[in-house]
Amino acid sequence: MNKYAVFHKPESNFAYASGGNKLTVTLRVAANDKLEKVEILYNNKYEFTKKQCVATMQCYAKVGIFGYYRAEITLSDARFAYIFRISENGKVYYYSEDGLSEEYEFDIAYYTFFQFPFINDADVLRVVDWTKTAVFYQIFIDRFSRGDFEKDDKYINTLWNNNVDRYSFTGGDLDGVTDKLQYLSDMGITALYLTPIFLSETNHKYNVKDYLQVDPHFGNNEKLKKLLTSAHEKGIRVVIDTVFNHCDRNHGIFKDVEKLGRASKYYGWFIIDGEFPDANAGNYAHFADCKYMPKWNTNNPEVRRYLTDIALEYLRMGFDGLRLDVADEISHEMWRQLRREVKAEFPDALLLGEIWHENEQWLKGDQLDGVMNYRLQKILVDGFGVSPVSAETVADRMNGLLISNTEQANAMALNFLDNHDTPRFLRFTGGNRDRLLCALCAAVMFPGMPCVFYGTELPLDGAGDPDCRKTFDWTFGNQNKEYKENLLQILGLKKNKALTGADAEISVENGLLKIVRTADGESVTAYFNTGGKTKAVNPSGEVLLALNFKNNRLLSDGAVVVKNN
Amino acid sequence: MNKYAVFHKPESNFAYASGGNKLTVTLRVAANDKLEKVEILYNNKYEFTKKQCVATMQCYAKVGIFGYYRAEITLSDARFAYIFRISENGKVYYYSEDGLSEEYEFDIAYYTFFQFPFINDADVLRVVDWTKTAVFYQIFIDRFSRGDFEKDDKYINTLWNNNVDRYSFTGGDLDGVTDKLQYLSDMGITALYLTPIFLSETNHKYNVKDYLQVDPHFGNNEKLKKLLTSAHEKGIRVVIDTVFNHCDRNHGIFKDVEKLGRASKYYGWFIIDGEFPDANAGNYAHFADCKYMPKWNTNNPEVRRYLTDIALEYLRMGFDGLRLDVADEISHEMWRQLRREVKAEFPDALLLGEIWHENEQWLKGDQLDGVMNYRLQKILVDGFGVSPVSAETVADRMNGLLISNTEQANAMALNFLDNHDTPRFLRFTGGNRDRLLCALCAAVMFPGMPCVFYGTELPLDGAGDPDCRKTFDWTFGNQNKEYKENLLQILGLKKNKALTGADAEISVENGLLKIVRTADGESVTAYFNTGGKTKAVNPSGEVLLALNFKNNRLLSDGAVVVKNN
Repeated sequence: MNKYAVFHKPESNFAYASGGNKLTVTLRVAANDKLEKVEILYNNKYEFTKKQCVATMQCYAKVGIFGYYRAEITLSDARFAYIFRISENGKVYYYSEDGLSEEYEFDIAYYTFFQFPFINDADVLRVVDWTKTAVFYQIFIDRFSRGDFEKDDKYINTLWNNNVDRYSFTGGDLDGVTDKLQYLSDMGITALYLTPIFLSETNHKYNVKDYLQVDPHFGNNEKLKKLLTSAHEKGIRVVIDTVFNHCDRNHGIFKDVEKLGRASKYYGWFIIDGEFPDANAGNYAHFADCKYMPKWNTNNPEVRRYLTDIALEYLRMGFDGLRLDVADEISHEMWRQLRREVKAEFPDALLLGEIWHENEQWLKGDQLDGVMNYRLQKILVDGFGVSPVSAETVADRMNGLLISNTEQANAMALNFLDNHDTPRFLRFTGGNRDRLLCALCAAVMFPGMPCVFYGTELPLDGAGDPDCRKTFDWTFGNQNKEYKENLLQILGLKKNKALTGADAEISVENGLLKIVRTADGESVTAYFNTGGKTKAVNPSGEVLLALNFKNNRLLSDGAVVVKNN
Repeated sequence: MNKYAVFHKPESNFAYASGGNKLTVTLRVAANDKLEKVEILYNNKYEFTKKQCVATMQCYAKVGIFGYYRAEITLSDARFAYIFRISENGKVYYYSEDGLSEEYEFDIAYYTFFQFPFINDADVLRVVDWTKTAVFYQIFIDRFSRGDFEKDDKYINTLWNNNVDRYSFTGGDLDGVTDKLQYLSDMGITALYLTPIFLSETNHKYNVKDYLQVDPHFGNNEKLKKLLTSAHEKGIRVVIDTVFNHCDRNHGIFKDVEKLGRASKYYGWFIIDGEFPDANAGNYAHFADCKYMPKWNTNNPEVRRYLTDIALEYLRMGFDGLRLDVADEISHEMWRQLRREVKAEFPDALLLGEIWHENEQWLKGDQLDGVMNYRLQKILVDGFGVSPVSAETVADRMNGLLISNTEQANAMALNFLDNHDTPRFLRFTGGNRDRLLCALCAAVMFPGMPCVFYGTELPLDGAGDPDCRKTFDWTFGNQNKEYKENLLQILGLKKNKALTGADAEISVENGLLKIVRTADGESVTAYFNTGGKTKAVNPSGEVLLALNFKNNRLLSDGAVVVKNN
């Protein structure tokens, strides 16, 4: 047995509670170890020295050089002490907090067992119910649809359907979104993710001057109310992009500090090196290299109070959740306070963070619900882009991603192909729409909440910002009819009960990526052809979707989804 | 290079901030790898794709089969993106969130680098200043000293200095502690850890009936005030044992639920399976197998409010910190609320949890400050007990313990040899006092706050509870004078500046365990002879302490501490 590979960590993604007295426990070993048996010995921590229950752990997945064994255990008591027993070649190893050993002293186990000391509900991340069937659609407001033709539109500097640059205003607004709710509902969309809409002089409005006033480019608070009411009438939830990392230089609070310096009562609301903030010198913390976006000091309790009140106000307006911009640069304390107060008043509000990297530390039940799934997006780019990696690599990385978080956090990840900060996915596939559809199908089949960026249904193409933020072409009509039908069919998969949980078996079968989802006794399987070669598949159930699937063969860039018997 | 051994985790004990823009970053590899160089490549996350700074990581420690490389980096910006570069046999490996690879694509590093996205002060665990020089003394009140001879003492059922059983009352009280403050101050004690003192019918008072009324066995709230005032006058801090996991079955709130069942407004304050709690059936969560100790439901916000108010009240009474009983079975949410409110009003209050096992999850800045260092105690038992393990094993496990937490959490661990829940340390050494002194010296030299259990200075002997809770023998006089002088000398070591930080180099030199502490430009080194053989040592500095040290040789069971030049 490879001793270097063995790893476990209590109260982490390797040992977590998901509701009731259920615990999911994972042990990492070397993938190429030939183990006869991997067991978990456990009991109430006060009984463990005397007596242990035994459960055999199953190989859950292999990820690169590592293999992961897992057991799901429902306890009769909320206290849980455990160690692992690994059998190989007639030899037995024990793995405890003390490390690996060939002997284990059970009588002093209270010093060395792993423990989940007590399953406290208050610490368990709960999946927000409506997210289980959610199909999201992301709207960049200025570019999606214009509905208000009476507004003062002198700010518009670019004709609809023309190319856009970073300073383009094309006229999209909240009325435009309201007008298209039926269109979105017909697509099967059940939730919107709106980029920012509050007072801001830019087209993207990520630099906010007033957090509670809808920007006049986009409408006003009455029009917002109408949008939210209409969406809810159609069963569509609305999540708003919330920018708490920074504000605009012209936000009244920052202006006060610019004017009064250290004498301002808001001086400590920013992180300033000097008596006054100096926009030329940039002597204050700001977003990226954007001096016009001073960073809020979320270490200051007054700032946390101010921003949390805004979050609560958004939810009182009727929003169903918050997409939290640059979530990882904001203090954990900010998220704890925001969650505490938000969930007390709005238990079903979704808190979704923009975090591109490892994110377990935000998703332990005390801060966020889920993240923008950038790590999945990278896998989809690599798996279905112009130089696709093998099905094995995709399966491997998908399993690695699932293992890196709890099932609840996985269930509330936003699975997108692209967004306003990345090139359009079509750019990654070199214009190949079949690969885009396969990737979308994988995003739907993968645990989490699928999200379509506005215009993907046409599809819109585009390089990175600003090219990915082109206007939606409403004159497109019936072009690419089959493509769009396929896309809607893919989104429709999310209606299957099997996709409402977070359970997923991801593997490779006959060179095809295979994702099996199971929930409530139903099961759905998808096969994907990555890597460009055609491969066989024999669906053994009701075919729910078939992209490039002919004569029982998946053609290159194809996928088939089957409901199992 | 052994790929299985490589490990890192962002925002954990492997990457943490300790104040200002300083980050400590650790990489694990195989101990027996022959690596030419281990480097960290880093920069502001917005610059990293274009340019990286390079720092060479130093081998910090070897622990069993693993080696740990570490770098301390002070950033010019609070944002930190990084990957590792490992050189071996002319080959170069990169280690990022994507795992190990021989090539690394810097231009898309924003997908794969490790990150510490922003150092937010509010998330950094801060060392409570007074703990840096604290020498603790734990007092089990009923057994330490009786001062009040006017009280109604019909409850006393055992004569002082007689053997005790689980039901003995011997008469110790708060006045007794107040009387002995000068004695303790003369010993060099700067902080007391008192076991519970509030209304409770047992001698240990871990089953509380009223959290705010001092038990009449021990005195009253006036006498407590006198004790606290007198202690503070002598520069002695007082930490109180706080029992928030459970209460006594006769606590008024539980009695209300026993009477009214589900109709009681307190029904949800406990975890009850049924309409009424039934003490015979034990159909409610309780401590261990003690049905007379119903467990508070700290998932209930009302319970958290109730207990947090009690914590605040304790600190308002004048206590300097809380030792939190059974801290690991209480919800994390409880600790977050308690810390938030306590530290806002009492930033210098110490929050010390009773946790026997892995404890990083409580010590990330949002919950507790430190823990009862049971993991160190086990090492000391194994290293200085009747069958001592080798110096290599002790050094190994000590380093493993240090690596498992941040330096701040290490600095606030309570380093004890024994307490009211374990046998007296003398029992572990088979009566050998030199080994006890060596272990105590190691507990002082190890980062953290040393703590002496009452009577260790005599020394008291005793098996586990109740034998370890014998009365203090005040008639002991001048017996074991040299032993006690040595003990006081050991405690005096803590006054050295070098021991006020958390920096420690632990290794083996000529078969001796060696601990080097450095702070503020001063350095102190201790050598310990574990394993029973005599070994040489050549102290190169001012000898601060020498136990069994003759002719430049450490005799069996000896230790020497030296202030370096």
